[in-house]
Amino acid sequence: MNERIDRYLSSHYQRRLDELSAFLRIPSISALSEHKHDMKQAADWVAGQLRQAGAKNVEVHRTTGNPVVYGDYVHTPGHPTVLVYGHYDVQPVDPLNLWESAPFEPSIRDGKLYARGASDDKGQVFMHIKALEAILESGEQLSVNLKFCIEGEEEIGSPHLPEFVETHSALLAADVLLVSDTTMLGPDQPAICYGLRGLCALQIDVRGAKSDLHSGLFGGAVPNALHAMVELLATMHGPDGSVTVEGFYDDVQPLDPEERSALSTLPHDDDAYKAALGLTALHGEPGYSTIERYMARPTLEINGLYGGFQGEGTKTVIPATAHAKITCRLVNDQDPERILGLITAHIRSHTPIGVTATVQRYDSGRPFVTHPDSPAIQVAAASYEAGFGVKPYYTRMGGSIPIVEVFDRVLHTPVVLMGFGLPDENFHAPNEHFSLANFERGLRTIAHYYTHLQNV
Amino acid sequence: MNERIDRYLSSHYQRRLDELSAFLRIPSISALSEHKHDMKQAADWVAGQLRQAGAKNVEVHRTTGNPVVYGDYVHTPGHPTVLVYGHYDVQPVDPLNLWESAPFEPSIRDGKLYARGASDDKGQVFMHIKALEAILESGEQLSVNLKFCIEGEEEIGSPHLPEFVETHSALLAADVLLVSDTTMLGPDQPAICYGLRGLCALQIDVRGAKSDLHSGLFGGAVPNALHAMVELLATMHGPDGSVTVEGFYDDVQPLDPEERSALSTLPHDDDAYKAALGLTALHGEPGYSTIERYMARPTLEINGLYGGFQGEGTKTVIPATAHAKITCRLVNDQDPERILGLITAHIRSHTPIGVTATVQRYDSGRPFVTHPDSPAIQVAAASYEAGFGVKPYYTRMGGSIPIVEVFDRVLHTPVVLMGFGLPDENFHAPNEHFSLANFERGLRTIAHYYTHLQNV
Repeated sequence: MNERIDRYLSSHYQRRLDELSAFLRIPSISALSEHKHDMKQAADWVAGQLRQAGAKNVEVHRTTGNPVVYGDYVHTPGHPTVLVYGHYDVQPVDPLNLWESAPFEPSIRDGKLYARGASDDKGQVFMHIKALEAILESGEQLSVNLKFCIEGEEEIGSPHLPEFVETHSALLAADVLLVSDTTMLGPDQPAICYGLRGLCALQIDVRGAKSDLHSGLFGGAVPNALHAMVELLATMHGPDGSVTVEGFYDDVQPLDPEERSALSTLPHDDDAYKAALGLTALHGEPGYSTIERYMARPTLEINGLYGGFQGEGTKTVIPATAHAKITCRLVNDQDPERILGLITAHIRSHTPIGVTATVQRYDSGRPFVTHPDSPAIQVAAASYEAGFGVKPYYTRMGGSIPIVEVFDRVLHTPVVLMGFGLPDENFHAPNEHFSLANFERGLRTIAHYYTHLQNV
Repeated sequence: MNERIDRYLSSHYQRRLDELSAFLRIPSISALSEHKHDMKQAADWVAGQLRQAGAKNVEVHRTTGNPVVYGDYVHTPGHPTVLVYGHYDVQPVDPLNLWESAPFEPSIRDGKLYARGASDDKGQVFMHIKALEAILESGEQLSVNLKFCIEGEEEIGSPHLPEFVETHSALLAADVLLVSDTTMLGPDQPAICYGLRGLCALQIDVRGAKSDLHSGLFGGAVPNALHAMVELLATMHGPDGSVTVEGFYDDVQPLDPEERSALSTLPHDDDAYKAALGLTALHGEPGYSTIERYMARPTLEINGLYGGFQGEGTKTVIPATAHAKITCRLVNDQDPERILGLITAHIRSHTPIGVTATVQRYDSGRPFVTHPDSPAIQVAAASYEAGFGVKPYYTRMGGSIPIVEVFDRVLHTPVVLMGFGLPDENFHAPNEHFSLANFERGLRTIAHYYTHLQNV
């Protein structure tokens, strides 16, 4: 690690923590419209920090949704340009009663900073800004040009970012997209994520009679929307957990033996995993390891199902309607729109007699995989080693960051997912927190990357 | 029809309507504890009416729940005793916005009296009291001894009535139980119901992981409680709608050919039935007519199903729990407890891997069928003919009045179900009403029964 940068970072520890705390105090919950003003305030705060760090062309860009903050430092001609993407919006905080300290009143306990957004993603966005500041203030040289694109709608599916990226493709043009919004494998197990699953989402609405019917007076003679929904959903999986929608696996490539071998070396223990989740058994596609199942295989998951009576006790009703929420995780060449089409066709051909089934489609995103042996990834690995003292693991993530695929497609840049969160830091849940040790080690990792990446 | 009774009834029409309206204004909703005081008031009102009609030994009997009103007129030695059962409690009224006039402000439109309880069951209870009054006031002779047992918990499953019946079996001893809480087939189609289906109820709770999990980070590797519930429920029916729980039909007798032939003469049209319910197709056990399916065949019906996300849009969650509410309608010798045992065993042997399924049992009632050719039924048929000018149909009802089976078992009386409601009078729904024409014709039917039944 560069000594001058390290010294600067060490001597500004408390100020940095105070600043991050100020950022975390802004309740920038994008899902709730009453926080509109907080979104603007958080965007302005990011812009102010970028300027203070030395960034140029800092601007809070209006969109029809929440603003996008842009800033850059482009003074290293002939060297690659890194576009840093992150988000200043956070998830809602309910149920509030499960928080041990108030979600927007940052609190340090056991070396962890507790607050909504601490790890996802304010803390990680802030590290990038502070890494730039540390390099410039300590008189060191960036080996790259830097651009920052920090949005305020990631937690609601980035509805306005694709348009912003397309209309500002020149401004955002870069050689590498760098995102810190993923997790490491464990406290001393940094990880570079080289793949994300894609996503598509739908709702099925089944209708039978025009209204609920008395199960005594009509039961046995009329269709029941819940029976029909159960019968329909049961056709979508085999007993072994595989997806039985016709054509679902058409565009899934067999796992590369070399990759399987690499994934098998990741630290994982089925028994400990089961115990941690309170499960008596794991369940998934036969022929794949747990890690392969959640990182590299596609799924069709019922996220919600409802119809009829939900109160205490019983109600003798034949429900007229039933509803199911479904999302799929996609890999390789699975196209979200094609998959939605296959599922819709499956529903059409498997709808039981006497009911109608309609499909609503929601936002979707393509799967993404990059090459772990590209220079952009290899320098990231070296930087992790400089920051953490150990080599990082190469992993895929079962989750989806749909916007990563948009950057990939519109800007044609390789993507580096350099995350510093931990799997148990309660992303999206009460008591979200961020390890202060990883905050410091991550800062040094990023500063190393900014000063060592020479080509992509 | 007896002329003096008829004259008395005709000359007291308005007073009778005013009194019924006063009864209907009492919001005696047994399901809601804030109406405790109204239950007492309704019971006292019934007791007052019984006294005014000439009944003796009138008493409002306390129970640990709502009171039971008793009264009798036992002055016809050597003749049969008829026990009239009914209820003064009513269903809740939500959704209130769908009522065209306030549920507890009786309103007459198009010859129909609109109010909660108008037909189910205050109106029908009131008719019995007024029939006694008309006979006594017009100087006619009862051919029977009369006892009234009017409870206040029918709409919540009569939790305290079985105990009351058992501890008051001498007081309630009778030769016939007479219940007016069922419907006719149509405005000019009176019906004697000679059978009711039984009922058993349960809830299934499925649990997978100890909490909901992120479908990106875990999806594909862990059990999903909703998948397991769907897989489990799908094993309970065949595609043709028959129940596939092992042993479910063991105690169901084949339908008697003579009864089938009688049921086939009941007025019914599948196309009109379908259209009225807004259905594109009917669905039920093959080999049975619609009427047989809902009157005389058993069912297993999912009344409610829920788990996971139910909000707008999507949430990428793997639900940890799923819940299903189920009721069965039973016929012949199907014992509710045995059926619950069979379903529990089925659940045990069909629970998918990786989840647990637990069963909660709720109240149940046995099926009930009586002989249509008993004198108690045959005189009822003659009374309908006297009151309505047409012969009644003999029907079974797909619904359940579990307490009927308790009277049958404890008091060993034949049961006559002499209903005056209509199928479209919105029992349990907004805009409940009662045909004033049937109110008047029914009064005369009951008075005829009270003055003509000589032996059972």
